[in-house]
Amino acid sequence: MEERAGQAVQDAYPDDFAWCYGCGRLNEKGHHFRTWWEGEHTVSVYTPLPEHIALPGFVYGGLLASLIDCHGTGSAALALHRKNGHELGDGTEPPRFVTASLKVDFVKPTPHGVPLKAVGTVQEIHPKRWKVETEVYAAGTLCVRGEVIAVVMPSTFLARERSGSE
Amino acid sequence: MEERAGQAVQDAYPDDFAWCYGCGRLNEKGHHFRTWWEGEHTVSVYTPLPEHIALPGFVYGGLLASLIDCHGTGSAALALHRKNGHELGDGTEPPRFVTASLKVDFVKPTPHGVPLKAVGTVQEIHPKRWKVETEVYAAGTLCVRGEVIAVVMPSTFLARERSGSE
Repeated sequence: MEERAGQAVQDAYPDDFAWCYGCGRLNEKGHHFRTWWEGEHTVSVYTPLPEHIALPGFVYGGLLASLIDCHGTGSAALALHRKNGHELGDGTEPPRFVTASLKVDFVKPTPHGVPLKAVGTVQEIHPKRWKVETEVYAAGTLCVRGEVIAVVMPSTFLARERSGSE
Repeated sequence: MEERAGQAVQDAYPDDFAWCYGCGRLNEKGHHFRTWWEGEHTVSVYTPLPEHIALPGFVYGGLLASLIDCHGTGSAALALHRKNGHELGDGTEPPRFVTASLKVDFVKPTPHGVPLKAVGTVQEIHPKRWKVETEVYAAGTLCVRGEVIAVVMPSTFLARERSGSE
């Protein structure tokens, strides 16, 4: 059975910001990645769907990049929320981040058919700019390394979202 | 109407290698990215689906990473095929590549609702290792820059695929 945290940061985003194809709980067709604390590390666990293959038997790299991307922004949100004196469930909304850059190293082919565990290490490099280093494991084997530079969501996103210009 | 080449490299992959969620023509639920030559550059054009959003109005970064990933391997396949003296449609199968690493810089938010055009520049850095630099444009505006290091598909993939071990 898939590992599932009691509460993930994505559960606590306001509805306006819960539409992400990767991690938005309101996006019916999305992946619904979820990210939580395990000690000093952040964790997301996801089992790829049958169609998420590169070749039969191996996970598609774009899905792994997507997992690392959303795990990165979610991890940064968890870390800044904690720095601000909050924890999930205390009634405050966590901050939202967007991805400035993404790096993915495919260390070895990722087997399909088992849950993937992304483990993140978060570092503040500027109050609005955080680095998240992620390792993705399949059945305990390190398959992918990733790095996300996440920045606090800029006001241009908020303005467009709130104006309903789409 | 969406731009569509007469023949893309993914059209010419053998059936065994046409299952990729990003660019495999046989993966019914996949994105079906397609990559072709335009002069000295490689091009893929894709219009994101309604659900492929980060926030309403903006394209999901993981989808952009996926486009850059498959555009990279497809571009490397086109380039090595040409180096080997072949062109699409001459009856020879193009080589297949896998991604060793992927970098994505999100230069500005990518608007949703228009076709995205990925334009690649391919460079051989080793006979089995090619670098593809990609720019992704939305309505003529550069939104994302990417880099893929693609390597000729290793025999471990082929062995597992051919043995049907999944």
